[in-house]
Amino acid sequence: MSAETGGGRAVSRFALNQWTTRRWSVAEAVDGCVRHGVEAIGLWRQDVAEQGLDETVELVRDAGLRVSSLCRGGFLTSGDALDDNRRAIDEAAALKAACLVMVVGGLPGVVPGEPLGAISRDLAGARERVAEALAVLAPYAGERGVRLALEPLHPMYCADRAVLSTLGQALDLADPYPVEQVGVVVDTFHVWWDPEVFRQIARAGERIASYQVCDFLSPLPADVLLGRGVMGDGVIDFAPLTTAVTEAGYTGDIEVEIFNADVWAADPDEVLPRIMTRFDELVGG
Amino acid sequence: MSAETGGGRAVSRFALNQWTTRRWSVAEAVDGCVRHGVEAIGLWRQDVAEQGLDETVELVRDAGLRVSSLCRGGFLTSGDALDDNRRAIDEAAALKAACLVMVVGGLPGVVPGEPLGAISRDLAGARERVAEALAVLAPYAGERGVRLALEPLHPMYCADRAVLSTLGQALDLADPYPVEQVGVVVDTFHVWWDPEVFRQIARAGERIASYQVCDFLSPLPADVLLGRGVMGDGVIDFAPLTTAVTEAGYTGDIEVEIFNADVWAADPDEVLPRIMTRFDELVGG
Repeated sequence: MSAETGGGRAVSRFALNQWTTRRWSVAEAVDGCVRHGVEAIGLWRQDVAEQGLDETVELVRDAGLRVSSLCRGGFLTSGDALDDNRRAIDEAAALKAACLVMVVGGLPGVVPGEPLGAISRDLAGARERVAEALAVLAPYAGERGVRLALEPLHPMYCADRAVLSTLGQALDLADPYPVEQVGVVVDTFHVWWDPEVFRQIARAGERIASYQVCDFLSPLPADVLLGRGVMGDGVIDFAPLTTAVTEAGYTGDIEVEIFNADVWAADPDEVLPRIMTRFDELVGG
Repeated sequence: MSAETGGGRAVSRFALNQWTTRRWSVAEAVDGCVRHGVEAIGLWRQDVAEQGLDETVELVRDAGLRVSSLCRGGFLTSGDALDDNRRAIDEAAALKAACLVMVVGGLPGVVPGEPLGAISRDLAGARERVAEALAVLAPYAGERGVRLALEPLHPMYCADRAVLSTLGQALDLADPYPVEQVGVVVDTFHVWWDPEVFRQIARAGERIASYQVCDFLSPLPADVLLGRGVMGDGVIDFAPLTTAVTEAGYTGDIEVEIFNADVWAADPDEVLPRIMTRFDELVGG
């Protein structure tokens, strides 16, 4: 969990993704990180907006926290999302976030959790729209020193959240851009099943902009979005994935991001030490 | 839906997978096929056992039905499954089934729908066990004129049902064996999301032993096993997949296999014409 810096101080790579302790506001989460010795936080745009962007910038600066990611831009497949993504990039720049996580969006018209109405079933077309939007957004991000992090989501979310389904596909999409402009997210929940995952992590190398961890629960809960579990509660073997990400050259923070009804119902001050212990035991880094 | 044979008779490629009309016994399903003009049926082992193997052989022969598949062998990752799979192969031979569908099994110890107990998280190891079991079963099947059909399942079932998750992975596994011994299943529900699917279908060519269709529902129901919908009720664009399978050279039956609480609750004599109409409209072949 920790590494010696040049000055000899141990740096913890554990990062709290804010939605793991979703009951906490940004201010409360920042305070929680300080009290529990967490050095980095992944923030969510809507919570930052609620706290106020300027105030959030001050809070994380005063607390000495690294912003491991801003979640999230994307949803590029339906309507005109460019303006909103430009705003997301500006926010990531203000927060000095290590990356802006991009969840690219599902099939046009499909709304998560809602019955299907008028939708497009043109999956190849939706994927093409993502590539087109990226061609506009990547240079904009580059000019502001922001790194876009393309996140392949588990294929069970292909219809409603992300037509980007594998790490290989994300790397193909990132290929035309400088590594500091477009990277990828390796999220254990989304990629653990992929027969190509170790080959693609090695291929990713410097493209890895974020390493996120949580477990994959079995059986899945009724709402599959909440199938993310505390490490050790599911089926994932984390050590080989951490080793692969490390060997690929990734030295950044490791975010624990858990969407889970039980975790959300629990006291965040109980959750945080519990996941930090499991992180030390199972994830390493 | 139909094609002219040499003799000028139209042959329907529509096949009823028996679990689409799960309330029907084998005898009832055979009778239903005859009444609705269906020429091929995919059978399930437990239902065949209930009807009696010999009686089932007679029923399908007397009805003039093709047996498009026998479901299913597999579950090769936990314990010793070889004897049971040899029996499944013998049954497929007796039924003259076009193939024995193989659902290879999940992580050792993971039971679908059950809380996790003592499990193995060694995914690579589980995949290795599948390859080892196949090395024993493929020659056994070959000697009996039975074709094993490796079925990649949607990655959301990787933990509990099949560590075989993509068509590419299935083809790698099949590679060492003659095409008549080991083929693959292309099931729209399981593969529609895969960025590699068209490339892998083309690669599959003569390896395609079965083409199964149903839709992918969004949102998924609480039990994701029942996320299979009637064609047109979900997010899949069938035409490009059917075209790809056809261009790869597959000329066999096309099975409609729907696990769905509403479909199962409905009168099979209402379900069958409904799915045959949707098949004509959306799947083709």
